[in-house]
Amino acid sequence: MKTPVILVVNDDGITAPGILSLIEVVKEFGTITVVAPDKPQSGMGHAVTLNNTIRVDKTTKDGVDYFSCSGTPVDCVKIAVNKLMTQRPDLIVSGINHGSNSSINVIYSGTMSAAVEGALEGIPSLGFSLCNHSIEADFTAAKFYAKKIIGQLLANNYKKGICLNVNIPNSTLELIHGVKVCKQANGNWEEDFDERIDPNGKTYYWLTGKFVVYDNTNDTDEWALANNYVSVVPVQYDVTDYSVINDLKHLEE
Amino acid sequence: MKTPVILVVNDDGITAPGILSLIEVVKEFGTITVVAPDKPQSGMGHAVTLNNTIRVDKTTKDGVDYFSCSGTPVDCVKIAVNKLMTQRPDLIVSGINHGSNSSINVIYSGTMSAAVEGALEGIPSLGFSLCNHSIEADFTAAKFYAKKIIGQLLANNYKKGICLNVNIPNSTLELIHGVKVCKQANGNWEEDFDERIDPNGKTYYWLTGKFVVYDNTNDTDEWALANNYVSVVPVQYDVTDYSVINDLKHLEE
Repeated sequence: MKTPVILVVNDDGITAPGILSLIEVVKEFGTITVVAPDKPQSGMGHAVTLNNTIRVDKTTKDGVDYFSCSGTPVDCVKIAVNKLMTQRPDLIVSGINHGSNSSINVIYSGTMSAAVEGALEGIPSLGFSLCNHSIEADFTAAKFYAKKIIGQLLANNYKKGICLNVNIPNSTLELIHGVKVCKQANGNWEEDFDERIDPNGKTYYWLTGKFVVYDNTNDTDEWALANNYVSVVPVQYDVTDYSVINDLKHLEE
Repeated sequence: MKTPVILVVNDDGITAPGILSLIEVVKEFGTITVVAPDKPQSGMGHAVTLNNTIRVDKTTKDGVDYFSCSGTPVDCVKIAVNKLMTQRPDLIVSGINHGSNSSINVIYSGTMSAAVEGALEGIPSLGFSLCNHSIEADFTAAKFYAKKIIGQLLANNYKKGICLNVNIPNSTLELIHGVKVCKQANGNWEEDFDERIDPNGKTYYWLTGKFVVYDNTNDTDEWALANNYVSVVPVQYDVTDYSVINDLKHLEE
């Protein structure tokens, strides 16, 4: 079997502890290339750089190429696959994100949007997130489960273009019960805007909010995380709401 | 029946001809507020501003409040609904975008992400896009169909949180055959990166590419547009790939 070619990306930036943890994990599995934003890009969703140039700075360390990219996480995947890498990746791993990307956060997340972009390119893609925002978070359990899941995916004949949203509870290996494959919980942010006055007397805002989960079944990522399981949600990108197509046929009249 | 409260948003910026066309259309239907980016925000997807402040400048013209916002299209919806508007909107309209948002473009599009954010807030939301990027595009047909569809939605008991992705072909009213309710076509961008050297001898890139449609059935938005129909795709935001959950249960072992 040929050594897998693996692209590592994230949204917290190329120097974040989370991506360094992920690099440690995937180094054992194949030949890796790192292409990641040159600055934090959390909450960038599926943004791409259309009206500006993209810059890339390359360094090489311990035989691994690191490309620091001025673009978004999705830009990083596009430029990695289509320009920077000499071989098409067999696998894309994104993260490990500092903070949860469960439930609706999947659509705001640069980490997960990078993984979705990989799947769009037809490449199996895994996004990993640890439910702890701290720069000093302990990635031990996250690394353990990232290694386990990457190993399982590489050992099986995974579907072309599969995309997994993996969230790891902020807990210890001893306390985590294992992995649950689940669906995205129905949840949302109840926003608040913190209104302040700048030194020039002008108003500005910070986006803040509280995350609320609306369902309470035991088949969601929020349930899994609340019960100390690693959540794995397979993700796809056809957002058509098939359930209402027939109800809308009157619009054709 | 009470006069509907309508929020108008876009991603091309508050001065774009497309949003001015949409404002003309929706003025007839209710009390409107405009909250739109202070600069072009195409391709911003579902990005939100987490690490920076958000600024808003208010002007009033002909009885309509216009808020020019430093944030992304999704920020505009969040701050409009949760901070700026005195009444919760009954309807959100986004666009009219300069350029198509059919097929996979729905996930890159700031216009459509703003509409999805509206639906997440539980508010019926419509995104309109004209398949013509030009600043001088003729919005006559787009305005006609925007008016028709908004009227139909307001006249019917539409589902809470419904979100429609409406694309109008770059054609004349006479040549457009009508409306098709359809699904998102399976398509993608085959990227290319235009590599250039700046005056200082450093490399930079522009993201370019060619859009490719993979399916050829007559139930997609791409088929509708290619055959001179207005496409209407209902959109939802649970991106779980339910079709593979059972196949992945081995990850729980």
